Amino acid sequence: MDFSSKLLENAVNEMAQLPGIGRRTALRLVLHLLKQPKEQTQYLAEALKNFRDEIKLCKNCHNISDMELCEICTNKRRDPELICVVEDIRDVMAIENTAQFKGFYHVLGGKISPIEGIGPHNLTIEDLVQKVERGGIKEIILALSSTMEGDTTNFYIYRRLQKHEVNLTTIARGISVGDEIEYADEVTLGRSIINRVPFEQGIKR
Amino acid sequence: MDFSSKLLENAVNEMAQLPGIGRRTALRLVLHLLKQPKEQTQYLAEALKNFRDEIKLCKNCHNISDMELCEICTNKRRDPELICVVEDIRDVMAIENTAQFKGFYHVLGGKISPIEGIGPHNLTIEDLVQKVERGGIKEIILALSSTMEGDTTNFYIYRRLQKHEVNLTTIARGISVGDEIEYADEVTLGRSIINRVPFEQGIKR
Repeated sequence: MDFSSKLLENAVNEMAQLPGIGRRTALRLVLHLLKQPKEQTQYLAEALKNFRDEIKLCKNCHNISDMELCEICTNKRRDPELICVVEDIRDVMAIENTAQFKGFYHVLGGKISPIEGIGPHNLTIEDLVQKVERGGIKEIILALSSTMEGDTTNFYIYRRLQKHEVNLTTIARGISVGDEIEYADEVTLGRSIINRVPFEQGIKR
Repeated sequence: MDFSSKLLENAVNEMAQLPGIGRRTALRLVLHLLKQPKEQTQYLAEALKNFRDEIKLCKNCHNISDMELCEICTNKRRDPELICVVEDIRDVMAIENTAQFKGFYHVLGGKISPIEGIGPHNLTIEDLVQKVERGGIKEIILALSSTMEGDTTNFYIYRRLQKHEVNLTTIARGISVGDEIEYADEVTLGRSIINRVPFEQGIKR
């Protein structure tokens, strides 16, 4: 693409660095900004800059936070004996939305992925082990995506915590609520049969 | 969505104002920036701000430009008797890419669209009429999309220029090069039959 303007070209190039945004889409977005009041671009630029410069990670759970400790970690009504291990803030938000979990979180910041060059030392696994060593934790729930990377990470954490006296659980895999069994994939259906639960427990909630 | 951080929420909200970007996508983009070096966010923010604050519209053709007159309008090897009327800079780029047009452009800045509240006075049609009145223009090529808005705009320009001695043409509509006739829509196929050209002219390219 040949641009008639360096300013436009720069804006498009920077925008196109974002994942899933090609140069055509970037051009569309940038031209859209031109039709809006100048303030909108200013607010956008400042919001992005402020976010990137001033955002903190919670010292306890490594979640994104405006303060040293996030709102969840400072909440005293939560159960300190229960820790849910997740990949990033989006998983925290998803689990919080269920209103079914009242413990604390531990955000890993990713999954072990040799292809992307992410090893255990790039994640906050060491800190999780130290938390367990300090004691007071009864159960750790692993809530990572069930991909190869997620399973690898789960297994690594399991090995690191094997010697410690802590209950290691993982969230249940199975047929989604409302799903038809005939359309479920075999692996999921197989797992849901192996990990079947007593009927009464299934209808409890 | 409940965010644990105001900074994150602001960034997501501003990002989600862009067309075609919902809050989930905005969150993904913003979290991506967090994993990149701080400079990337800085460059993005500055490029957007500089673009919006300093961009000019060419005084002659109303195209986006860094200077008072754009590169096309200052090019003396172009034909000043020929003007191609387009909607916005993307059309200029598309036509320039064909390398088939050596005249000047006139960028309208949109199409007449009562639904979106865009009337003739929001576009640069008046300036086009004045250009014609000043004389020296032999042909005006209308190159707007063939939508209802495009046709309305074409017709409005036609009415405004009716009394003036200028050749008003419109780009050819027809089957795309490489397209199979059986899959073409009827309107396009119909038009391409009505506007058939002598065979020798058709192979000239």
